Amino acid sequence: MIDTLLKAAVRDIADFPRPGIVFKDITPILKDAKLCDAVVESFIERLEGLDFDMIAGIESRGFLFGLMLANRLGIPFIPIRKEGKLPSKTTKQSYDLEYGTATIEIHTDAFAPGAKVLLHDDLLATGGTLVAASKLIEQLGGQVAGFSFVISLDFLKGRERLMPFSKKLISLVHY
Amino acid sequence: MIDTLLKAAVRDIADFPRPGIVFKDITPILKDAKLCDAVVESFIERLEGLDFDMIAGIESRGFLFGLMLANRLGIPFIPIRKEGKLPSKTTKQSYDLEYGTATIEIHTDAFAPGAKVLLHDDLLATGGTLVAASKLIEQLGGQVAGFSFVISLDFLKGRERLMPFSKKLISLVHY
Repeated sequence: MIDTLLKAAVRDIADFPRPGIVFKDITPILKDAKLCDAVVESFIERLEGLDFDMIAGIESRGFLFGLMLANRLGIPFIPIRKEGKLPSKTTKQSYDLEYGTATIEIHTDAFAPGAKVLLHDDLLATGGTLVAASKLIEQLGGQVAGFSFVISLDFLKGRERLMPFSKKLISLVHY
Repeated sequence: MIDTLLKAAVRDIADFPRPGIVFKDITPILKDAKLCDAVVESFIERLEGLDFDMIAGIESRGFLFGLMLANRLGIPFIPIRKEGKLPSKTTKQSYDLEYGTATIEIHTDAFAPGAKVLLHDDLLATGGTLVAASKLIEQLGGQVAGFSFVISLDFLKGRERLMPFSKKLISLVHY
């Protein structure tokens, strides 16, 4: 049901960001407040029974539903950001991109050791950023309780890379 | 009341991003779900009577409360992003930074001409980004209905730069 509604809303943009890539554009979802509400409700339903204390969202599209979901569940939201954006003391992880590398950071005092963290982003592709984010959580003594995505591009096999961190992976739409 | 709670939560980080700057860190707010809720409720209260159709939030911290607020009001959320991030056809605006320039974009089909748009960001400093965002709204035939910020650094006089676009400016905390 939510799957059908989301597939109807998501726009395919050909050749973005590079020729040959079909980009899944979520901006039409954000225009539909009822659908946004349904997204959050669906996450809550599917996360039932999972034991987690907080949600970490990955800059910047992981901020969108990440904070809404955390707020609806009454738990903290932790931003994971690109290098140089978080103002206090941070822990970093770099990861490979097709061309070059990228670095993400988390505040070192984001949570106390032992915290169970749900990692959230809008879309799971190859999982490179999510692997780096999972390492950040573990570096701070936390545990990755699971992953939540609006969209998963299953053909890129990101799930396999995330399995060592947590087997609990929720995606509302699969391609 | 919300002002006191927010001032107690916001962390001052000295010398970020550069020596001599005191950065207002909002990440402690995001850890407190009740406070996040109070932020959204306060915005709704103070926006009462203002006529607007949608909220445009500025990447990336404007995505945080921007989408939550739009969702609570049952209206569309429009992302304004840094150059090269929005996948469909965009309209751009560049603006000066202390060193160099930056460019932000909006999807050209983000809204129909005549739309009344509330511009949202977490913090108002000198207003450079907000002026560029206001121009984007007007370039697409929209009208800036107002501005909402969690924090305003009044001593940087951003408000004066935004007055030509809309006199309605709400900030939950002023420094």
